[in-house]
Amino acid sequence: MGTQQQHQLEQDDQLEYQTDHHASEAGLVQGLRKDDLELEAQDPKKKTKYEEEEEEEEEEKEEKENLGLEEELSVERIFEKQAVPSWKEQLTVRAFFISLVLSVLFSVIVMKLNLTTGIIPSLNVSAGLLGFFFVRTWTKFLDRCGLLKQPFTRQENTVIQTCVVASSGIAFSGGFGSYLFGMSARIARQSADSSTSDIKEPGLLWFIGFLFVVSFLGLFSVVPLRKIMIIDFKLTYPSGTATAHLINSFHTPQGAKLAKKQVKELGKFFSFSFLWGFFQWFYTAGSDCGFASFPTLGLKAYQNQFFFDFSATYVGVGMICPYIVNISVLLGGILSWGLMWPLIENRSGDWYSKELSPKSMNGLQGYKVFIAIAMILGDGLYNFLKVLSRTLIALQSQLRAKDVNNILPIEDQVSPAVTSALSYDDQRRTQLFLKDQIPAWFAVGGYVAIAAVSIATVPHIFPQLKWYYILVIYLFAPSLAFCNAYGCGLTDWSLASTYGKVAIFMIGAWAGSAHGGVLAGLAACGVMMNIVSTASDLTQDFKTGYLTLASPRSMFVSQVIGTAMGCVISPCVFWLFYKAFTDLGTPKSAYPAPLAVVYRNMAILGVEGFKSLPKHCLLLCTVFFGAAILTNVIKDCIGKKRARFVPLPMAMAIPFYLGSYFAIDMCIGSLIVFLWERVNKAKADAFVPAVASGLICGDGVWTLPASILSLAGFKPPICMRFLSRAENDRVTTFLTGSSSVKV
Amino acid sequence: MGTQQQHQLEQDDQLEYQTDHHASEAGLVQGLRKDDLELEAQDPKKKTKYEEEEEEEEEEKEEKENLGLEEELSVERIFEKQAVPSWKEQLTVRAFFISLVLSVLFSVIVMKLNLTTGIIPSLNVSAGLLGFFFVRTWTKFLDRCGLLKQPFTRQENTVIQTCVVASSGIAFSGGFGSYLFGMSARIARQSADSSTSDIKEPGLLWFIGFLFVVSFLGLFSVVPLRKIMIIDFKLTYPSGTATAHLINSFHTPQGAKLAKKQVKELGKFFSFSFLWGFFQWFYTAGSDCGFASFPTLGLKAYQNQFFFDFSATYVGVGMICPYIVNISVLLGGILSWGLMWPLIENRSGDWYSKELSPKSMNGLQGYKVFIAIAMILGDGLYNFLKVLSRTLIALQSQLRAKDVNNILPIEDQVSPAVTSALSYDDQRRTQLFLKDQIPAWFAVGGYVAIAAVSIATVPHIFPQLKWYYILVIYLFAPSLAFCNAYGCGLTDWSLASTYGKVAIFMIGAWAGSAHGGVLAGLAACGVMMNIVSTASDLTQDFKTGYLTLASPRSMFVSQVIGTAMGCVISPCVFWLFYKAFTDLGTPKSAYPAPLAVVYRNMAILGVEGFKSLPKHCLLLCTVFFGAAILTNVIKDCIGKKRARFVPLPMAMAIPFYLGSYFAIDMCIGSLIVFLWERVNKAKADAFVPAVASGLICGDGVWTLPASILSLAGFKPPICMRFLSRAENDRVTTFLTGSSSVKV
Repeated sequence: MGTQQQHQLEQDDQLEYQTDHHASEAGLVQGLRKDDLELEAQDPKKKTKYEEEEEEEEEEKEEKENLGLEEELSVERIFEKQAVPSWKEQLTVRAFFISLVLSVLFSVIVMKLNLTTGIIPSLNVSAGLLGFFFVRTWTKFLDRCGLLKQPFTRQENTVIQTCVVASSGIAFSGGFGSYLFGMSARIARQSADSSTSDIKEPGLLWFIGFLFVVSFLGLFSVVPLRKIMIIDFKLTYPSGTATAHLINSFHTPQGAKLAKKQVKELGKFFSFSFLWGFFQWFYTAGSDCGFASFPTLGLKAYQNQFFFDFSATYVGVGMICPYIVNISVLLGGILSWGLMWPLIENRSGDWYSKELSPKSMNGLQGYKVFIAIAMILGDGLYNFLKVLSRTLIALQSQLRAKDVNNILPIEDQVSPAVTSALSYDDQRRTQLFLKDQIPAWFAVGGYVAIAAVSIATVPHIFPQLKWYYILVIYLFAPSLAFCNAYGCGLTDWSLASTYGKVAIFMIGAWAGSAHGGVLAGLAACGVMMNIVSTASDLTQDFKTGYLTLASPRSMFVSQVIGTAMGCVISPCVFWLFYKAFTDLGTPKSAYPAPLAVVYRNMAILGVEGFKSLPKHCLLLCTVFFGAAILTNVIKDCIGKKRARFVPLPMAMAIPFYLGSYFAIDMCIGSLIVFLWERVNKAKADAFVPAVASGLICGDGVWTLPASILSLAGFKPPICMRFLSRAENDRVTTFLTGSSSVKV
Repeated sequence: MGTQQQHQLEQDDQLEYQTDHHASEAGLVQGLRKDDLELEAQDPKKKTKYEEEEEEEEEEKEEKENLGLEEELSVERIFEKQAVPSWKEQLTVRAFFISLVLSVLFSVIVMKLNLTTGIIPSLNVSAGLLGFFFVRTWTKFLDRCGLLKQPFTRQENTVIQTCVVASSGIAFSGGFGSYLFGMSARIARQSADSSTSDIKEPGLLWFIGFLFVVSFLGLFSVVPLRKIMIIDFKLTYPSGTATAHLINSFHTPQGAKLAKKQVKELGKFFSFSFLWGFFQWFYTAGSDCGFASFPTLGLKAYQNQFFFDFSATYVGVGMICPYIVNISVLLGGILSWGLMWPLIENRSGDWYSKELSPKSMNGLQGYKVFIAIAMILGDGLYNFLKVLSRTLIALQSQLRAKDVNNILPIEDQVSPAVTSALSYDDQRRTQLFLKDQIPAWFAVGGYVAIAAVSIATVPHIFPQLKWYYILVIYLFAPSLAFCNAYGCGLTDWSLASTYGKVAIFMIGAWAGSAHGGVLAGLAACGVMMNIVSTASDLTQDFKTGYLTLASPRSMFVSQVIGTAMGCVISPCVFWLFYKAFTDLGTPKSAYPAPLAVVYRNMAILGVEGFKSLPKHCLLLCTVFFGAAILTNVIKDCIGKKRARFVPLPMAMAIPFYLGSYFAIDMCIGSLIVFLWERVNKAKADAFVPAVASGLICGDGVWTLPASILSLAGFKPPICMRFLSRAENDRVTTFLTGSSSVKV
């Protein structure tokens, strides 16, 4: 489960205002509430309410009172006296240098999340904070030395955001935890059809090559449509809007003050989390050692994967994710590992052979994987159809109405009070947005050129993926990319991985099992995902640029450079993990890469049908597929208020395969946020994202030295092991009896 | 090492204002500075400075400004309108009921400390806070029901304090971790002369009987002298004074507010510490299991007893103890386990036989115990002589001067500004102090009667302790009790355990080894310690009573009741530990009772001389004995400012035998206080004692259910074990090879 699915989870909960991780640079989305966010673009006063912290609340109240009479205060009036640099000036060397550093950081974190559970929260706040912090520090330093030539502008900040998000987005859409790694023999051995020869071993060079030829198409496909979506349709892009407000606020004096405090908090928890990771390392000599194997709730619960594993990352992830996501994951874990698997295990010998290895897809493992797939597909299909139909309906009504003031679909209309006359903000933003044009011939030419290169080269990487499959994908891709970008603008929900799954089934079935359909399907998934994912990213960025007066050209260039960085950084980071942790991708290891198995089994399902499923598994899958759709229908019918208590099928499916240890981490994160909000809501809203980012980043950065230690052959010296009383007695006898070495 | 020694440690550091745990109910001593405390009785404004918390600083500043003109503001003027209840009204049933509950609590805690390291910090703040909290809650409840007949007064609060301290004092002076347990065969086997037949096994009944016949003498011996010491000599009794101020402050509106906050903080950390103890329990199936065996600094360091053992108790103890105590303990640990023991171990085969068991007193263990004894004796001797000489000099000059205004020894004179006319406070306090008399015939008669009973019965308990030894002790006891009470009033340092050690050597040598001198010495130590310890306790309480207008009669009755409680509760609590933890008193167990071995070896040394020492040990002992004295001389010569950087020999000696794991806990406590003071000094001063008390009490209370679980046969289910990489590999092979049960 990747970013898009994650956002699907969130989306179900908070449909209109969810953040999409790599498709945008969402700001303090956690702290924002729907009504606020929808109004933000129109009401600058609202903005400050969430971007200021409690301590400044009083100041702010006064300020508000002072401003009370000027109801229509404009954000751009505040920045009126600041000259907007030309698009070339926005693209500074320092911005790209800092983007590079942050890209590596976030690629490592996203890769780690990919390979552990596949749940990837929004890291945009930390990207925003850290980017601001680094550039500000650098410019202050230069300023003191009297060497500062160009001040740090919000446009430059937007360029950094765009570049970092584009780059670390590749770590997700590159499929290192899903389709690309799913091609390897290691994953194939764990899949339903382990005899298949449809494998392609990971390789650094072909990874980079593949990403380079498929990742840029999405950018070119949406460039000509940017004016329609941003200016004419005035799509909301909640994440992009929130990010823009975050950046705008950083560059006001008060916002900078809050940002500084947030960075301090982030730094504190970053250090804690890093040191905690370092400390844990010493006790992990061997499997089942260390805090990650701590039977916090007892040995019996541990055997069924119920334990708190002391992971700072997932506590942080839990703090960022909405409550319902965390509770859904826990519910899923209880349903599966607490109830279903023990019951199915009782049937061993009847439903499946007792002699099977516990990893065999024909045994219990098969039920785990396929039921999870059924739920993911059921949820995905429902939401795909829902968003697609809403997109088409909204598009139709807009094209029919032609009224600029009425371009939003009914339920997303901001407010009836939006005047037909453009506000000062809108005027100025539109003016700057339209100033720097990107010619249509450039976009079309670029698309055709890259598509041609891609069609020519990709079949060399995957002989199973014939050139005409790719050609067909590329013919449909621009419209799908537009659909995804438009849907994302409406719902903040990028459907990239769902489009990818569609490609798996379509191309897989077309190729057929005799012609390597499994590999063809997985490769097609990659081609498709990269196009639609980057398309929605760029459009989101255009919106951010529109609101921060950054030029579309600089956004485009930044995205291109970021994507190029990502195409090199992500494979290298994956390679580091792959070489350093030799048990990568095997169950119960530190990096089980659960979605790789899931994607490969989807491909097998698409190619070979249901014949590989164990007894009664198809029935169970159908039940869960239906239950996933039904849950969504119920969620949509009972109204927003009650819908937030309905669990999300997608989130419930993840622990089916993995167990619920990370669910417990995440729920602890939720608990912390809940208590914090009880004690001090305003402070929690301002600092939860910073604290969570600190926890995630610190632990993520620790994986860098950890993998380097591992590559250099340094192994942890101690094993913290958990033995039952009886085992411990035997071990004590064994150790004292057979050796004089005592610990 | 017991309370007195502990206070000796502290005393070295902060001679004039140290708290004596069971001899007083010291208040926020940590937060007080010498000059402040000395002036407190004269300057009520000073008092508020330390008894109010930072958050109220502003209020307080205003208040101070308001009071600025009334320099001579009197504490008793504040309480002027409150009627002082008669001495019988001060002794309420609710007070003794709460005293009983708190006595059990603190006896458990003191016993646990006795049996783990022997370092016992001042628990008076928590006793004060909890006593206040319970009675206030109860009276508020009654008040709401309209049933409150008698309001909660500060006199009643003083009664509770006195009773609890008297009772839990027996847990220390009863010698369950030192002389009394040192008589057992288990300790005898670990001592230098393991062949001795001088043993007396622990028994609940004779414990209670012995304590009853020896613990009340001290009370009667000082009663006739109370007027001289409190009114005429105006001795400071810093701990008693601080406690009185604490109690007085609780009963002002602001003080009650602070107390409430402190109790809340205490409660929070109490719960945390209790739950932490509970959590740890699950992972301690077997020795070397659980967090207490966590090789936090690596396996090599763990083997030399350097590790953080996650003990909430000792982190709390470290927070209460002055920095220099904690640093001294750590220094001692580094010097002994880091340097000396490895060096001596290299000489094994030369200095001592390699074949000896590691527990043998003729081997390395002997060096550890005897060098520690040498340092403790050197330090004790120096300070004994110092305080004794100061006591005698001061006494002499006071008796000569006869001037009431000049009765304090020169260096302890409060201020030249003390006027010859008594202040309002002093007048009122003196009047009430003299109102309720305790007749001299009652005191003398009581002393003689109890002494007669004691002389008749104790030899039945210890046949080795002849009746004439006891008679001699009782002839000298009143003067020694007076010396100790007087010295404690001057320096806040009760020398009880030093007097006890003198008795060990004197009576032991008199009895001789042929007539059970070891046991006679240990028993004599008990008789002596109980007298001098309770004597200084009661005088301290008289001072507290004087300052809170509590009657001397109610103080005396409360002390008698408290002592009686202690004589029953403490043996029962010890018995619980003894039965529940069957490895009590053995090295490396959870309760090694280190001082039991030390006391027994002192007795052996006294009776048999140096013949039992291993090679070169006498030389080393002499060096360390001299070094301890020299350190004290240097400390006294270089001036207060620099003296606080000189380590305390007594504190350095403790880890010689035990290792320095608790030193690391204590230093972490210090570090927390240090950082807290850096961040917010005023808040730290107000809340450090409450937080530390919470940590100590929570962990202490957990030992109750832990011992009940153990008695009921419930054993922890899991062992958290730490294995080296090589061992872990062998264990993994062993477990997977020999059994199908896997954790």
